[in-house]
Amino acid sequence: MKVLSEPARVRGFRFAGVSAGLKTVAGAKDLGLIAAQNPIAAAGLFTTNRVKAAPVVVASERVGRGKLQAVVVNSGSANCFTGKPGLRLALDSCAAVAAELGCDGTHVAPCSTGVIGHLYDFEKYRDGVRRAVGALNEDGLEEFARAIMTTDTRPKAASVRLRLGGREITVAGAAKGSGMLSPRVATMLAFIVTDVAVTPAQLRTALKEASASSFNAITVDGDMSTNDTVLAMASGAAENRALDGRERAIFVEAMGAVASSLARQLVYDGEGATKLVAIRVRGARSRADAERIARRIGNSPLVKTAFFGCDPNVGRIIAAAGASGVALDPARLELRVGGVKIASRGMLLVGALEAAQQRMREREFAVDLNLKLGSGEAALLTSDLSLDYVKINAEYTT
Amino acid sequence: MKVLSEPARVRGFRFAGVSAGLKTVAGAKDLGLIAAQNPIAAAGLFTTNRVKAAPVVVASERVGRGKLQAVVVNSGSANCFTGKPGLRLALDSCAAVAAELGCDGTHVAPCSTGVIGHLYDFEKYRDGVRRAVGALNEDGLEEFARAIMTTDTRPKAASVRLRLGGREITVAGAAKGSGMLSPRVATMLAFIVTDVAVTPAQLRTALKEASASSFNAITVDGDMSTNDTVLAMASGAAENRALDGRERAIFVEAMGAVASSLARQLVYDGEGATKLVAIRVRGARSRADAERIARRIGNSPLVKTAFFGCDPNVGRIIAAAGASGVALDPARLELRVGGVKIASRGMLLVGALEAAQQRMREREFAVDLNLKLGSGEAALLTSDLSLDYVKINAEYTT
Repeated sequence: MKVLSEPARVRGFRFAGVSAGLKTVAGAKDLGLIAAQNPIAAAGLFTTNRVKAAPVVVASERVGRGKLQAVVVNSGSANCFTGKPGLRLALDSCAAVAAELGCDGTHVAPCSTGVIGHLYDFEKYRDGVRRAVGALNEDGLEEFARAIMTTDTRPKAASVRLRLGGREITVAGAAKGSGMLSPRVATMLAFIVTDVAVTPAQLRTALKEASASSFNAITVDGDMSTNDTVLAMASGAAENRALDGRERAIFVEAMGAVASSLARQLVYDGEGATKLVAIRVRGARSRADAERIARRIGNSPLVKTAFFGCDPNVGRIIAAAGASGVALDPARLELRVGGVKIASRGMLLVGALEAAQQRMREREFAVDLNLKLGSGEAALLTSDLSLDYVKINAEYTT
Repeated sequence: MKVLSEPARVRGFRFAGVSAGLKTVAGAKDLGLIAAQNPIAAAGLFTTNRVKAAPVVVASERVGRGKLQAVVVNSGSANCFTGKPGLRLALDSCAAVAAELGCDGTHVAPCSTGVIGHLYDFEKYRDGVRRAVGALNEDGLEEFARAIMTTDTRPKAASVRLRLGGREITVAGAAKGSGMLSPRVATMLAFIVTDVAVTPAQLRTALKEASASSFNAITVDGDMSTNDTVLAMASGAAENRALDGRERAIFVEAMGAVASSLARQLVYDGEGATKLVAIRVRGARSRADAERIARRIGNSPLVKTAFFGCDPNVGRIIAAAGASGVALDPARLELRVGGVKIASRGMLLVGALEAAQQRMREREFAVDLNLKLGSGEAALLTSDLSLDYVKINAEYTT
C-alpha cells in the first residue's frame, strides 16, 4: 500500500487554514476547519489525562454519538485549565462555526492546542471562523495542517488511494505535535478523513486498530497532553458498496498506513529531535511485557541522551529494560543497534561498538532487544533528547 | 537534631580511600574501604532493577545474614552485565580484602560503580586493596567518600552526634550518585555507620524507615541503576544499654537525618543540576496517590526543563499530575511555586506568575500541589533538566 507524505483531495470534504490572530506571531495561521456537506460517520480517541481541556470534553461527548459535520481547530491556546469559562468558550466556538456553515452546533467538534491556562479572544476567533468558512476548498488540507502547528517546524500530512468496494477511495490526514505536550505544543492532534462509506461503528474499529501501532506507539518525551485528540470522519462520497470482511481489513490497513505516516512525521519533527529511533522488543513472555520494556527504553533520558551522542550505550539500554519491572534474564539478552549485535548472552561485545556507533550517526536507526523468553513483541518510535529539546522547553516563558 | 554535612569519627570503624588505577584519570581515588574490628550488625537495601550487578548479588546475599566486617567499594567499573566472570571477580575482590584484614571472606560486602559491561583489572584492584588496608584510619571517611565518586563533583558525607542509651553515640555516612544511573555514574551508593549497639533486625528496621523519606524520595532522571546499594553497619562500640522504645525512635530519627542529608546532597549534585526542587503533594486520597503524582511531576522532562528555565509552568505541572492516572479534580487544584499561589480552583492566576518566576531564580524552591480531596501527602526532591545534563550524558562514549 503506497502512502504519500502529502495531502490529497477527499471527496465530500473541504478544508481551510487561516490566521485569526490567536498566536502571538502576526499573520501566523492559527485556525483550521474541516467541513462535510452533512453530518457523517465520525470516530475519535482522546487523551486519558485526568486533566482534560474543555474542547476534549466537548468533542469526546459529540463524537461519541457517531456523527459530525465539521471540526474546528485552533492553535495558540489549549483552552485547558480554564474552568467553566473555558467550557463556555468551546461551546460558543462550535456555535460560531455552525452559524456560518448553517449546520447543527452539536455536529461541530472543537480542538485546541497551545498555552494552558489561558482563554483565547472570542471576537478574533469568530472573525477567523467567518474567513475560514469563506476559504473552504477541496485542496485546503495543507493549509489546515499549517494552521494547527505550534512548535512543529513543518506541516504533516499523508494520503493513500486505493480501490475498495468497487470504487477508488481516498484516506488522507493531517497532524500536529512535537513534544507530546507543552504549553507551547500542548497536544498531539490528528485528523483522518476518507470518502469511503462506512458506519460509525466500522470507522471506530478502524481508527482504534490503526492507532494502536501508530499514534499509540510513539513518544517524544513521555509526557501526556491534556488535549490529545485523534478524529476520523468518513463522508461516504465514494458511494462504494458495503465493505465485506476482506475489504474492511484493507480499509483498516489504509487507515493504519496514513496514521503510521503521520505518527512517524510527528516523531521526526519532535522538539529538538536529531534522531528517529525504532525500538523493537522481541522474545518477551507477552506483548504487554515487550511494550513495557520498549516504553521504558524509549522514554529513558539517559538512553535518549546516548542516542543524541551516537553512543551505543548497552548499559543504559539494558538497565532501562531491567527497570521496567518485567521479568527478564540478563544472561539471555541479545541487543542490536543499527543492525549491529553489541550484546549477547549477558555480555557486552566490545569489538562491535565502533560499528554500531557509525550506524547511530545516521538520522534513523533501530534498537532491537531480544529477551529470548517467549514470543511477545512490541515496537515504539522515539526521538533523542538533544540540547535543542532543553533549549526549546526552557527558554519559553509562560 | 543537628546534622552536619561532613564526616565524623565513629568508634569501631576505620576508613580508607586510595587510587588503584581503575579509573581512567591517573591518580584518581577509586577504591574505598570501611572496616570494623569484628563482624557487626549490618543491613542493606538494594536496587530492584531486574538487571543486577554482580556485587549487588553478592552483597545482598551476605548482608541478608545480618553481619559484616568490611565493605569494599570501587568506582570506574560497575561490574554489571559481565556474566559469570563478573561474579567471580566480585567474590575474588572480597577474598582479597579478607586476606589482608585477616577476616572471613563472607563478612566482606562488595560494591561497584562505573561503566557497565566491563570487568576491572583484578591485579590493580588487589594492589589497591593492600594499600587501602594499610591506609585505614578513624578519620578516613572523607577519603572513602572521594574514592566512590564518579560524575559527582564533590564528596558527600553527613553526621549526627547525640546521647542515647546512656552514651554519646554517632551516626555518620557517605554517598555517591549524580544521575540515578549511567554507565559513568551507574549507581547511587550510600553507607551509614554508627557505634550504637543494636541488633541486625533493629538496624534493618531503622534503615528501611530512614530510607523511605530520603533515598527513596529523590530523583534526578527517573532512571534506576543496576548497582544501587544502601548499607548500614553498627559497631556497638558506644557500649550503650539496650535501647527502649523511645530511644529506638530517636535512633531511627538520627539515621533518617543522616540519610536525608546525604540524599539532599545527591540531588544537589545531580548531573547538570542547577535547581533543587522539593515537590510536595497534599490533599490526595492516599499517600500512594500523592506519591505517584509527585514522581510524575518530578520526572517529567517538560516540568524539569521549565525548572531550568525558571518558568512557573502551571500547564506542565498539572498535566503531569493528570497523567499519573490518579483520580483528581482540576477544579479544586491549588498550586504554589516558591510559596506563591499560581493556580487555584482550576484556574491559572496570571498575575502571580512574575512573583513565582522570581522565586524560581533561586537555587532551591518548592512546588506545592494541593488536590483538596483527602489527607494523603508525599514529598520528593528533584533537580532540573539542564543543557549540562544533556551534554554530560551525550558527550560520553562507551
